[in-house]
Amino acid sequence: MAAPALHQDLEPIAFLLGTWAGEGEGDWPSSGPFRYGEELTFEHVGEPFLLYAQGSWAAGDGEPLHFERGFLRPSGPGRVEVVLAHPLGIVEVAEGSVSGTAIEVASTIVATTTTGSPVTELRRRFELDGNVLRYELEMALRDVPLTRHLKGELKRASPAGER
Amino acid sequence: MAAPALHQDLEPIAFLLGTWAGEGEGDWPSSGPFRYGEELTFEHVGEPFLLYAQGSWAAGDGEPLHFERGFLRPSGPGRVEVVLAHPLGIVEVAEGSVSGTAIEVASTIVATTTTGSPVTELRRRFELDGNVLRYELEMALRDVPLTRHLKGELKRASPAGER
Repeated sequence: MAAPALHQDLEPIAFLLGTWAGEGEGDWPSSGPFRYGEELTFEHVGEPFLLYAQGSWAAGDGEPLHFERGFLRPSGPGRVEVVLAHPLGIVEVAEGSVSGTAIEVASTIVATTTTGSPVTELRRRFELDGNVLRYELEMALRDVPLTRHLKGELKRASPAGER
Repeated sequence: MAAPALHQDLEPIAFLLGTWAGEGEGDWPSSGPFRYGEELTFEHVGEPFLLYAQGSWAAGDGEPLHFERGFLRPSGPGRVEVVLAHPLGIVEVAEGSVSGTAIEVASTIVATTTTGSPVTELRRRFELDGNVLRYELEMALRDVPLTRHLKGELKRASPAGER
């Protein structure tokens, strides 16, 4: 089946399309520093949003660490919205800016299930630099102020538009 | 790579595992009735949650209609939590019951981006009957009371545990 044409609203964030793989460094007060492998996928279906999927695993034993699933929606010139679900029992609504190949979003809402993790705030920054996609994530919990949690560096593992 | 063992917490909802394909009937005050094709996938990675992906397309022209991405988390005997993101710019936290092969959840939180759809409430019911997975979805918008929106009937398209 032929790939659908890219929706014109996606042009400012089309640099994300494809699958990215690499490694990252994490840190958190309760766990200390850790390293992980990661894969991110951004797909489109001809509509004005990207489908986003993230998976990471521990660098040592390859155990699954974290998953994220959701969507990116351009919402006006230089603006983007993000909606995500996490298996920790949280959902995230974030909004922010697109400037060249840099995207910065901050959560406007983080909501949890009854037994979900007490995450209260998330901030993300992505930047494509040459063929390297770098990102950083800051997180706050009910009892932990906003802290740099993750920093990753990924390379394109499949061409834009293909899985 | 060998599939990981199923986490024991997932046993009550393991009947969902696999890919399901079929058709559904939708209705909504502003659109009137419509028919759609749909695929649902429930996967596990050895952790105490299922990864859920939904896609649907118009029965006539095959245009993409809707997508959902997220996770199901058993949260105690007979209880399940659901966290989902939708490309409409909404996130959904839902909780409810598992009884035999029937799952019923109601949203506890629906949150939206600035430009997202004004969804205020969602209720879902899934039931496996023989080899048919039936579901119903009710939705409320800011100006529309809770209304049956979708009703689908799906058959397993791939074995449990495989995509």
